[in-house]
Amino acid sequence: MIVRKRPNWLGMLLVWRGSVLPDILPQLVLTTAFAALVTVLHGQLFSFKVTLTFVPFSLIGIAIAIFLGFRNSASYERFWEARKQWGALMIHSRSLARQIMTLQDDPAAVKPIVYAQIAFVQALRHQLRRTDPLPDLRKLLPADFVEGTLAKAEFRPALILLHIGGLVAELRRAGRIDPVLVNAVERHLDALSDVLGACERIAGTPIPFTYSVIIHRTIYLYSFLLPFGLVDSIGLLTPLVVAFLAYTFYALEALSDQLEEPFGTAANDLALDAMATTIETSLREMLGETDLPKPHKPKNYVLS
Amino acid sequence: MIVRKRPNWLGMLLVWRGSVLPDILPQLVLTTAFAALVTVLHGQLFSFKVTLTFVPFSLIGIAIAIFLGFRNSASYERFWEARKQWGALMIHSRSLARQIMTLQDDPAAVKPIVYAQIAFVQALRHQLRRTDPLPDLRKLLPADFVEGTLAKAEFRPALILLHIGGLVAELRRAGRIDPVLVNAVERHLDALSDVLGACERIAGTPIPFTYSVIIHRTIYLYSFLLPFGLVDSIGLLTPLVVAFLAYTFYALEALSDQLEEPFGTAANDLALDAMATTIETSLREMLGETDLPKPHKPKNYVLS
Amino acid sequence: MIVRKRPNWLGMLLVWRGSVLPDILPQLVLTTAFAALVTVLHGQLFSFKVTLTFVPFSLIGIAIAIFLGFRNSASYERFWEARKQWGALMIHSRSLARQIMTLQDDPAAVKPIVYAQIAFVQALRHQLRRTDPLPDLRKLLPADFVEGTLAKAEFRPALILLHIGGLVAELRRAGRIDPVLVNAVERHLDALSDVLGACERIAGTPIPFTYSVIIHRTIYLYSFLLPFGLVDSIGLLTPLVVAFLAYTFYALEALSDQLEEPFGTAANDLALDAMATTIETSLREMLGETDLPKPHKPKNYVLS
Amino acid sequence: MIVRKRPNWLGMLLVWRGSVLPDILPQLVLTTAFAALVTVLHGQLFSFKVTLTFVPFSLIGIAIAIFLGFRNSASYERFWEARKQWGALMIHSRSLARQIMTLQDDPAAVKPIVYAQIAFVQALRHQLRRTDPLPDLRKLLPADFVEGTLAKAEFRPALILLHIGGLVAELRRAGRIDPVLVNAVERHLDALSDVLGACERIAGTPIPFTYSVIIHRTIYLYSFLLPFGLVDSIGLLTPLVVAFLAYTFYALEALSDQLEEPFGTAANDLALDAMATTIETSLREMLGETDLPKPHKPKNYVLS
Amino acid sequence: MIVRKRPNWLGMLLVWRGSVLPDILPQLVLTTAFAALVTVLHGQLFSFKVTLTFVPFSLIGIAIAIFLGFRNSASYERFWEARKQWGALMIHSRSLARQIMTLQDDPAAVKPIVYAQIAFVQALRHQLRRTDPLPDLRKLLPADFVEGTLAKAEFRPALILLHIGGLVAELRRAGRIDPVLVNAVERHLDALSDVLGACERIAGTPIPFTYSVIIHRTIYLYSFLLPFGLVDSIGLLTPLVVAFLAYTFYALEALSDQLEEPFGTAANDLALDAMATTIETSLREMLGETDLPKPHKPKNYVLS
Repeated sequence: MIVRKRPNWLGMLLVWRGSVLPDILPQLVLTTAFAALVTVLHGQLFSFKVTLTFVPFSLIGIAIAIFLGFRNSASYERFWEARKQWGALMIHSRSLARQIMTLQDDPAAVKPIVYAQIAFVQALRHQLRRTDPLPDLRKLLPADFVEGTLAKAEFRPALILLHIGGLVAELRRAGRIDPVLVNAVERHLDALSDVLGACERIAGTPIPFTYSVIIHRTIYLYSFLLPFGLVDSIGLLTPLVVAFLAYTFYALEALSDQLEEPFGTAANDLALDAMATTIETSLREMLGETDLPKPHKPKNYVLS
Repeated sequence: MIVRKRPNWLGMLLVWRGSVLPDILPQLVLTTAFAALVTVLHGQLFSFKVTLTFVPFSLIGIAIAIFLGFRNSASYERFWEARKQWGALMIHSRSLARQIMTLQDDPAAVKPIVYAQIAFVQALRHQLRRTDPLPDLRKLLPADFVEGTLAKAEFRPALILLHIGGLVAELRRAGRIDPVLVNAVERHLDALSDVLGACERIAGTPIPFTYSVIIHRTIYLYSFLLPFGLVDSIGLLTPLVVAFLAYTFYALEALSDQLEEPFGTAANDLALDAMATTIETSLREMLGETDLPKPHKPKNYVLS
Repeated sequence: MIVRKRPNWLGMLLVWRGSVLPDILPQLVLTTAFAALVTVLHGQLFSFKVTLTFVPFSLIGIAIAIFLGFRNSASYERFWEARKQWGALMIHSRSLARQIMTLQDDPAAVKPIVYAQIAFVQALRHQLRRTDPLPDLRKLLPADFVEGTLAKAEFRPALILLHIGGLVAELRRAGRIDPVLVNAVERHLDALSDVLGACERIAGTPIPFTYSVIIHRTIYLYSFLLPFGLVDSIGLLTPLVVAFLAYTFYALEALSDQLEEPFGTAANDLALDAMATTIETSLREMLGETDLPKPHKPKNYVLS
Repeated sequence: MIVRKRPNWLGMLLVWRGSVLPDILPQLVLTTAFAALVTVLHGQLFSFKVTLTFVPFSLIGIAIAIFLGFRNSASYERFWEARKQWGALMIHSRSLARQIMTLQDDPAAVKPIVYAQIAFVQALRHQLRRTDPLPDLRKLLPADFVEGTLAKAEFRPALILLHIGGLVAELRRAGRIDPVLVNAVERHLDALSDVLGACERIAGTPIPFTYSVIIHRTIYLYSFLLPFGLVDSIGLLTPLVVAFLAYTFYALEALSDQLEEPFGTAANDLALDAMATTIETSLREMLGETDLPKPHKPKNYVLS
Repeated sequence: MIVRKRPNWLGMLLVWRGSVLPDILPQLVLTTAFAALVTVLHGQLFSFKVTLTFVPFSLIGIAIAIFLGFRNSASYERFWEARKQWGALMIHSRSLARQIMTLQDDPAAVKPIVYAQIAFVQALRHQLRRTDPLPDLRKLLPADFVEGTLAKAEFRPALILLHIGGLVAELRRAGRIDPVLVNAVERHLDALSDVLGACERIAGTPIPFTYSVIIHRTIYLYSFLLPFGLVDSIGLLTPLVVAFLAYTFYALEALSDQLEEPFGTAANDLALDAMATTIETSLREMLGETDLPKPHKPKNYVLS
């Protein structure tokens, strides 16, 4: 996630980090160079004059509007839904911790369960970023559970929820929690299961690939044909206008690519690491701990 | 579902598998050939000069934008809702299994119920793909239930839910689960019933047929009239521009057709087989089983 | 609901049933005839030359895009929400039946309650289609309840839910169902009440009438002025283009009209009769009955 | 709410009541008169020729499309959400009444609670329409509660919910309702509280005022500049086209204004009075009363 | 939030406060001055004639429509979701207070809990506006809790919810509330936790920064190039049209900026202070208090 104070209107024109310019520079330079070449040759390719007017571009613009507009919305919705799921992770982590601290009557049971909740959050983060969770999990869960079960498992967060369910069942069998209140606790275990499933869904099912193909082709063909359509009417300004239009299309495509997979590590992706730490901090503050993790700091304006 | 690493910007222009080009090639070739013919004849049909300017196409473009944009959104929403339902299937399958393992106190009851859950998933998959579920169900459910009830039934997944409800009722009557916790279990049986009903709704009620008819006519008439509107201004480039525009329209229509029925087996449809296996794997991993099914592999980039 | 196998791309151009052409033919013929007249007279009305260019139509197109696009989306959303409600009707009918069969312990109570559920579905269908429910209800409910209460009542489905609630209360008072499980049953009675209220809302509150008026005027004025704007540039093709554009606008308006009131009996409306039968079949299959109603068949591709 | 049988396609062009024409007539006449003046003067103001082409209007059209389209959608969503809330009011009023009649065992307690529910509905209606609820409330609630508490209170519906909660608490303390079933009743009191809060939100927070200002300026400037842009190309038809376009913009703005505040008494606003009576009728029919209020009748096609 | 009676159609053109004109005046003046300069120089810069036609602007308009339309919708959705969350805060505050007054049987416990609820609301408000909550909290919560725990805490509202949970646990252990009814209370504590998490999400995750950059560049480049595209066709009216178009784009951008961060103190942001007071008033009215806070008054039409 890009974190920076918004510059004023003039500064916004000059921003480098946080625009996607670095990602699209090669294509953009190539497109503009081609437009310059077409301008110099007055639209002639190999002594064949390519006559195009603005009309085709006006018509194709409709298709582009549908495609890019849709792709952008769909990508942003995925990004925002992913963020909502991590918001729900915070919400239900806190609510579950609160209930473990107030609905059951064995003080010694609190810390193992809340730490297992933190382990769930970290395991989910590692699964989504495809990194190794075991070092983190060893600090938070009983060794035999980590080594005996999680180490070789495929769906670790689901097993941690099962582990928490087991701890609650022990409390119930020991009479430390009224069965009727187990219902309340179960609602939050279910909610964490919802978050898990929703994140797996977003991570596992991209926007249908064919969209990307159609959109990509449309905007590149458009941008490379455009100089032929402009050169006869605006002459030397053709490369500037082509660069401008290509920039908007390429940049929107690149941004959509980043937002479509919100759990990645691109500049505009979600700050999973920072969010996981925030949840851990809030839970441990509720436990009364004072040696809390430090909030993450952005590097080059990017919080990962 | 198409599964492939996204090629770079140049490679995206050349992708064959995963674009819908194979599906629309005949129409596209015909449209382009017709445009070429019109270009060669300078817009004359049987010595009658068809004079069209860009104006009608600009006006019709509005209607196309509304139609195609709407159809596309509606189809994608169906696809994505279907995916969400299968995500919910995973979520509630896991949550129900967790509860069966922690809220009731008869260890012997766990496996029959969780296997019946897997049977529910497989029965739903077969119903949506209109294939025969009985071979799969025989491995997972008691023989008399399969042969006596399911074999000749119409709504099999609903009967499997009833079967699970019956198993839970036995536990309750035997005092192995507190009635108050049956409530928690019921919430997940209800949620599975929600998934079932939602999938049946999507499978059973397409987007109103009339939309398809109007859209189809509009884009084909548009594409076949277009050469007359372009030939006088852009001459020999007419077939290229017509092919380009027709490709975007035909491709979007074809993609919408695939997404509208997300439970089918077209390239962009949902990977029901793979998802059902994933759910089965996760449930059996929770049971502590180790001989788990292998994840499905895509064939020609397509995971079914 | 129109039920037909989609023809290939050529056949789609020729479909008659299922397009809304029959509904809009008179206006369309009149519009085209007027356009032909204008073409023949070269845009002169009573020796006054009406000079119009494409400009006004391009500008008005913006307004039409907003209006028609909005109206279409709003109508489709009503249609789809209505379908979702009937999906929920199926879902909660099944879930309630399952609970009546597993959460309470008086086998004799099952059939009267499930039949009352079927009566609820049929009563809702009749209310939405404004037909007489009493013949159907007499087969499903106690005679004194039908004749003494429902016969002269206004809100029959609500009274049937109250009747079911009363049956459950008897079970509770007789100790045949744990009060805590009554909660689960109540959730489904509430859900059926939700469906009832939502259907009444859709049936009782149309899209504000003023929208229809503004849209109607805009597309008709547009279509009747259009020939004057086209005749000078495209000559003899004017009637064809006018017919084409008018068809897209009129057809979309007609389709929106049908979808706006999804409980009616137009071709694209919901198949309430068939859906009610499906729910009845599924419930009776759960009861173990074998003499089930036959699925409805479409007539002329239309399932009502 | 406008209630009328939709006239045929010809009649729709002539509708007066139900179009917003009466509300926008002065501005529309002025705009058209100005356009006529510009036409007569051939675009000259004080011997200065104002040269405008269609280009600026085509560009501004984009901004108008965004603004008006957004404003319209946002207003309609407010209208429709308000309607859904009143649908939920009906739904939960019925469900709560049903539970009061079946989940507790003191027949004498039914009527006071159901009448208090009706009082809640009427108090909400009066609060939203800023009318005096006390005459209605006196018929439905105990005198001391009305005079002692409600008469000088600010948030009356919230206090009526508290009153109902108190009645249920009495039943619970008297052992007439199982505490576990109080939970079910509480869900509906909560749902009524949801409706109350949602209606207060819609009534209290309009669409940000700045939108209205920007949109208003854009469409009026556009409409008053338009004749200069058209007069050179379409001459005498300028006033007609300006009137047409201005009508669509002004009418959409006026309709959005009405829908934005759906609890008012404009023609397209919600029929709160009629809906409140319908809820009252349905609740009293459930009580078995026969002397029910008559349904409201529309006046001049408008149901308030 | 801007609170003013809407002026009539003429007055709307002249509104100053509440339009965002003050915020964008410098850029707007600069843009218009530049357009005037270009007009005077007839499009020549340093004796180089910049030839631009309307075509590029028509094409770029598509990109602007996608960008601005999307940004505007996304910002408004954030604003409206934030408002819904504060509506939910009102709703669940009232419902929780009602339950504390009716579901448990210790009158002395009511006031501490309801005051802690008010403290939750005020703490959330201070957190979102980054102001010091301690003065407000000291009036509402026990001193040792404020000084010992909250004073140095990071996530104060979450700790206040935990505090309320602890008070309810005391009631449960003292037998003053049936455990089954604790479930109902917990639902509202969870709902308050939902509001907290959702507000933190909106406050902590802006719309991806890259959008702002792309949009900003597009509308400024567009506005500064536009005079070259217009001057040849509309001459002296160029600055007027440029100012008009730039106004709509800049104003929409500025408004989106305000709505994107709805918890700030810009004119169109949410009136958190006023809403917090309203919630406090309603809760204390329910307690039967009569010395209630006065409603906030807008200053210069703005309620903060």
